[in-house]
Amino acid sequence: MASVPVRFVLCEPTHPGNIGAAARAIKTMGFDRLVLVNPPADHHGAEARARASGALDVLESAEVMASLAAAVQGCGLVVGASARHRRLGIAEFDPRECAGQMLAAGAGGPVALVFGTERSGLSNAELDLCHALVYIPANPGYSSLNLAAAVQLLAWELRAAQGITLDIPPPESPPATVADMELFYEHLQRVLAASGFLDPGNPRNLMRRLRRLFNRARLDQNELNILRGILAALAPGSGERHWRGVPPPADDGTP
Amino acid sequence: MASVPVRFVLCEPTHPGNIGAAARAIKTMGFDRLVLVNPPADHHGAEARARASGALDVLESAEVMASLAAAVQGCGLVVGASARHRRLGIAEFDPRECAGQMLAAGAGGPVALVFGTERSGLSNAELDLCHALVYIPANPGYSSLNLAAAVQLLAWELRAAQGITLDIPPPESPPATVADMELFYEHLQRVLAASGFLDPGNPRNLMRRLRRLFNRARLDQNELNILRGILAALAPGSGERHWRGVPPPADDGTP
Repeated sequence: MASVPVRFVLCEPTHPGNIGAAARAIKTMGFDRLVLVNPPADHHGAEARARASGALDVLESAEVMASLAAAVQGCGLVVGASARHRRLGIAEFDPRECAGQMLAAGAGGPVALVFGTERSGLSNAELDLCHALVYIPANPGYSSLNLAAAVQLLAWELRAAQGITLDIPPPESPPATVADMELFYEHLQRVLAASGFLDPGNPRNLMRRLRRLFNRARLDQNELNILRGILAALAPGSGERHWRGVPPPADDGTP
Repeated sequence: MASVPVRFVLCEPTHPGNIGAAARAIKTMGFDRLVLVNPPADHHGAEARARASGALDVLESAEVMASLAAAVQGCGLVVGASARHRRLGIAEFDPRECAGQMLAAGAGGPVALVFGTERSGLSNAELDLCHALVYIPANPGYSSLNLAAAVQLLAWELRAAQGITLDIPPPESPPATVADMELFYEHLQRVLAASGFLDPGNPRNLMRRLRRLFNRARLDQNELNILRGILAALAPGSGERHWRGVPPPADDGTP
């Protein structure tokens, strides 16, 4: 799970569905600590469970507290989510700044991200417990994110700030080498010249465009073999100087 | 509203609540164009409306299409949201890279962000229409974001990118549209079948590989014209049903 000890605190949430959806949102981003301040009685009910989907564990282990003060006890940084600028003389972060600040503070102990009730957000008494606010720069014409959607967005920024990057699997076929690509371009140029499409006296501009296109595609060896097979099929005899042919592409079950 | 003409396309969404929530998510981030491919009959019903909240206008103006191909018609960049690595030889972006790429491509015309059905994601046939995938690096132990939550997250990245990216110049030639690419693939398939390289009884695997390759290259219109000119030159008579030919590329001094 995540290395940053973040509590996601929902103050007086009224819709059980939002509670379940918030549990799912934080779990997908690698967090597991949900705290509910005065939730509705059915906060573990059917609607919450349906929306939690595979995050039932997070929903069921959510702590229930009677006050925000109890929920954020021991936290070194408490940031309140606000749908609008508050002009309160309190620091305001955008979501990315918020993530950076929470990561930094989280290195020293627990931190909390606090969300107000759906209709009206954080009360003044709740704001008094926050060290800073995070403000999502939404559409000024309609800035009302769903509660769980706001949780998802801020949890994502926390995850992204940790530097979690794509772990891209190795390609199914090795990349075509520069030398192989040169042989392909020579083959292509011969075929195009023979067809009359390429002016052999001035091949440069067309060949340059084609190079850019195929270089941009970053061919793998299978793909290069397919292209050379196509050239050989369309212009028999064009390829033998450099190329001995390949079997047709195997139906390898690639989806 | 947003300056980037992004279509948010939901393929065969099954839960009306998710459709309404997606409408709300995109509106909060300044977008307004939702496209539904084969949605359930009650996609405008009470549950969808409740979850749309103040985004009823986006929900009600959502276009309904019978196929993904129709939904992405005219789009210069089509990115599919994937919950897992696909090993398809197709570019994979993280959400931030996705936003940057869509902003750049969106300067030249409409782009699309495509989401698969809740349970199983995008089908292979739908993936074949995508130039690239976006993969949310979620918790490996539970990576299943709710559909509307994924829409919120990616829409947020698009919004944030509009505030922080460099001013990317428009491309020298507009991107090839999906429809133009389909005509090219038809032309290519005819030529390959006539040459004997393609087994007409089993064209799928080879054509899929070629689609991936050329989709990955994200051709512009000049490049597409060159490729069709090459096909016509190598297989005279193959192209006239759909294509009237182009002049050879001008030597426009492109370096």
